[in-house]
Amino acid sequence: MTDKPLPDQPGEGPPGMPGLLAPETLLHRMADHLAHRFAGAFSAETVERYVFESYTALARTARVTTFLPSLTQRFATERLTALAQAKGAIAKSVPEVLFVCVHNAGRSQLAAALLHAKAAGRLHVPSAGSMPAEQVNPDVAAVLAEVAVDLADEFPKPLTDDVVQAADVVITMGCGDACPVYPGERYLNWDVTDPDGQPFDAVRAIRNDIAERVDALLAELVPAASPA
Amino acid sequence: MTDKPLPDQPGEGPPGMPGLLAPETLLHRMADHLAHRFAGAFSAETVERYVFESYTALARTARVTTFLPSLTQRFATERLTALAQAKGAIAKSVPEVLFVCVHNAGRSQLAAALLHAKAAGRLHVPSAGSMPAEQVNPDVAAVLAEVAVDLADEFPKPLTDDVVQAADVVITMGCGDACPVYPGERYLNWDVTDPDGQPFDAVRAIRNDIAERVDALLAELVPAASPA
Repeated sequence: MTDKPLPDQPGEGPPGMPGLLAPETLLHRMADHLAHRFAGAFSAETVERYVFESYTALARTARVTTFLPSLTQRFATERLTALAQAKGAIAKSVPEVLFVCVHNAGRSQLAAALLHAKAAGRLHVPSAGSMPAEQVNPDVAAVLAEVAVDLADEFPKPLTDDVVQAADVVITMGCGDACPVYPGERYLNWDVTDPDGQPFDAVRAIRNDIAERVDALLAELVPAASPA
Repeated sequence: MTDKPLPDQPGEGPPGMPGLLAPETLLHRMADHLAHRFAGAFSAETVERYVFESYTALARTARVTTFLPSLTQRFATERLTALAQAKGAIAKSVPEVLFVCVHNAGRSQLAAALLHAKAAGRLHVPSAGSMPAEQVNPDVAAVLAEVAVDLADEFPKPLTDDVVQAADVVITMGCGDACPVYPGERYLNWDVTDPDGQPFDAVRAIRNDIAERVDALLAELVPAASPA
């Protein structure tokens, strides 16, 4: 401590926090808005907790903090929607297929984006990671762009209980036993190579491997579907 | 998919999940118990969400899943207590000093354990990590045992909003801007070496460095205190 005296002023911000020095006001506004939207399904207290915990969970790992408010809004909304569906307060319009990998930066993003594109509205396909990375793997975004699938709006998210509760099918890839198991849900494990650190051609091969699995899954879950 | 056909039975568990195949019943019981304990402070809905999300957050990273129920109970209780204090539903008996590092396996565990021991009940000292490790660093536990501080019951926990809300002082070590900043709290950053992968003598030196900082902090926060 001798070389780094304590600052005199309480409330002094830590170094390297230029963006959201005071997220509180913004998060309270967001919580009020969502509490109105989810009135009937959840108390204002629950919604506020979801907003603040979603913010902190993303702030822990996200690299670009500029987008944190909009990512928080989306993450909290997705989680509250999932929970409302799980408890029957909101009807589920289509089956939910949840993909989980370690970083939610490669495999689960690839699988969710491909299945979402091919299902064309007939499935809802969230994804999550047991230890979310700072950002989506740029090579993964590139090999998806090659097949005209856009990953620009996606971001790594931690696995939360609500999305598991809402899922009809949970597909894990390389994340061990990180996911809780609930009755009435179907759990699959796909043995797919992690694209992290792989050369571009290998990432392409992983995309093709996942695309084949996704086609088979889609044909089974939505039997009338013809693969895109 | 050709080499790995989909199983016929829905609800089939994933491989490698021998321990808690059905955590739901246990978590509901835990939630009922805690809802009773926190009645007046929180709705049963909020308490249930805390229990289930605490379980999933620990299951994502914990290596030894055998202890997950008891760790979940402790983690959820600590979080609900922190939140109740932050909103004034429970009185805070002593100031809260929160230590945050990346893995909650080394630096923040060392600092929290040393300050807890030296403060002898005059401070409450939680810790958390932005990306919690599977387990506490065994060398860190060993260098603390050398100074008669026991780390056996500690476990890496993700940083959550509630403990930040409850904190009077937040001390970050190597975790960048992972921690939300709230008004009225004091934020410090300690530039301490990460013990991960260091030789044992270096871990000892890190313990001594942290112990010196902890002494200075304690003398400032609890002026009447004589260092242990």
